[in-house]
Amino acid sequence: MNSTTIPVVPLAFAPFDVTSPIATELEEVERILARSLRNSHPRVAEVVDHVRHYRGKRLRPVLLLLAAKACGRVTPSHLTLAAVVEMIHTATLVHDDVLDGAKVRRRVATVNALWGTKTSVLLGDYLFTHAFHLASTVDLRACREIGSATDRVCEGELCQVLNAGNLDLTEEEYFHIIDGKTAELTACCTRLGAIYAGADLETIEAMTRFGRYVGQAFQIADDLLDLIGQETLAGKSLGTDLEQGKLTLPLIHLLASPVAEQAREVIRSAGRNCRVELQSYLVEAGSLQYARDRALELANLAKAELAILPSSSSRTMLEVMTDRAVQRDS
Amino acid sequence: MNSTTIPVVPLAFAPFDVTSPIATELEEVERILARSLRNSHPRVAEVVDHVRHYRGKRLRPVLLLLAAKACGRVTPSHLTLAAVVEMIHTATLVHDDVLDGAKVRRRVATVNALWGTKTSVLLGDYLFTHAFHLASTVDLRACREIGSATDRVCEGELCQVLNAGNLDLTEEEYFHIIDGKTAELTACCTRLGAIYAGADLETIEAMTRFGRYVGQAFQIADDLLDLIGQETLAGKSLGTDLEQGKLTLPLIHLLASPVAEQAREVIRSAGRNCRVELQSYLVEAGSLQYARDRALELANLAKAELAILPSSSSRTMLEVMTDRAVQRDS
Repeated sequence: MNSTTIPVVPLAFAPFDVTSPIATELEEVERILARSLRNSHPRVAEVVDHVRHYRGKRLRPVLLLLAAKACGRVTPSHLTLAAVVEMIHTATLVHDDVLDGAKVRRRVATVNALWGTKTSVLLGDYLFTHAFHLASTVDLRACREIGSATDRVCEGELCQVLNAGNLDLTEEEYFHIIDGKTAELTACCTRLGAIYAGADLETIEAMTRFGRYVGQAFQIADDLLDLIGQETLAGKSLGTDLEQGKLTLPLIHLLASPVAEQAREVIRSAGRNCRVELQSYLVEAGSLQYARDRALELANLAKAELAILPSSSSRTMLEVMTDRAVQRDS
Repeated sequence: MNSTTIPVVPLAFAPFDVTSPIATELEEVERILARSLRNSHPRVAEVVDHVRHYRGKRLRPVLLLLAAKACGRVTPSHLTLAAVVEMIHTATLVHDDVLDGAKVRRRVATVNALWGTKTSVLLGDYLFTHAFHLASTVDLRACREIGSATDRVCEGELCQVLNAGNLDLTEEEYFHIIDGKTAELTACCTRLGAIYAGADLETIEAMTRFGRYVGQAFQIADDLLDLIGQETLAGKSLGTDLEQGKLTLPLIHLLASPVAEQAREVIRSAGRNCRVELQSYLVEAGSLQYARDRALELANLAKAELAILPSSSSRTMLEVMTDRAVQRDS
């Protein structure tokens, strides 16, 4: 086993299907998504339909629905809101592909590769507005929660782009960025799950923290994947953070280590082999281990929050998801 | 007077300041905008602040507030919603500049010229989400009205981009596009003005139609400006519709005229002088006059809807705005 293939923790929970307690509900979410995005104009419909290929793990709807079930029960509002958060996530993916000039996502051509940048920017906008409109079929609180969370998501993304190439980014600033761009939406999911299950305030706050920790842990694992993962397993280009001058947690740690100067030179060169050249420095400085430890620590904090809930298969699946968030190889 | 300088109708109403009945309210809208877009992160704040330079005629807030006053009175909800519609409009401008690769807007450098495409895409998203979040401080109906209108705005824009280069675009399809990308938001403004002034259903519907007609007339005048306006007066690049293969009303008329074949050749060439070369054909086929007549017809339909309101200075200013919408030279 070499440094590029170390999983963060053993894949102990791999056989579990985390969606088993909410399989029927997830199917209904798919129907709501399809219905909400339907368009009578054939050219528009074709482009909108294409994003169905982006369908991934449905991480956010699964978090929302499991949180709902673990807190009590899944209501029609949960189903609608699960579609809303997935639509928002898809909107950010479509715009991310524009930002990165990505040609392939989930092994199919991206919207920008097929229809160009203009269509991609507008499709992302279309998905954002449809998400908000769909939220308004629930109630005012849903609109406020979704509005507030997406504000922070966009702020985090803007913050990241405006710090591209900033090799002096601090760990605090890094956490501000990932808390916005990733953890805010996962926190919103588990929070909405709790709210619309009728949970008390204490449970709502605990579930919000749970979702936030999971999102942060997930993002650190994603950052590690980008640095040391295998492209064949990940099914996407890796090393893009480095190419785009995005400092992630292992790199921030590295740039405060005794080998900082050498590492800084390698990163500044930003050459094609940058990722490979950095490996030995990252190991030497203990930066990979540092980031893994932080991810595991956050995963543990997340799981501790679940103690507020009664035992249930849904709660167990939330624990499984938390563990998987930090043991990603794809 | 040559064909490039004919105003659509005489500038009879130019001396009026249409904002006079709502000057104080507009100042408050500016304060709400500034407060809602405030960001504690200096890099983000700098970019967000830059869009203040895009400040134009505030057409949409003015329509909303005049409609409110003409229907009864301006309430705090109106002020917030006027900021919401302006934010949505600004979001579409920021994304339009990405789509068009525009370097200058209102004589200042665009966000994409200063910070690049990524920042512009994310800033547009940031403005969209903040607009929705701000709408959710009003009530659920506001969220639904704004959600529904922005869905149609994005659909219209997508439809337009997906029809770029389609020389067989019909007049019906053209109206579907402008009804979405322009008239839906102006209709939303005057509708919200009426709703939150406590108007009855009949008045709300009449004011919605008023805003829609004004938006359509405004867009046709804008299309004419792009074809035959003077760049020095307009303060922006003209002929961009032709460059981007967007068929507008005069062109659709031209392509159904006896000189269609010659015109089609000129448009297909899409050369730098395309705009100039088309002038004589547009005059010969009566296409400019046709589009002007349609714009005037829509302006008259708009003004007829105002008959439902009692006389007031605000109603007069809505009439003035309608006339100005079709006599644009900038």
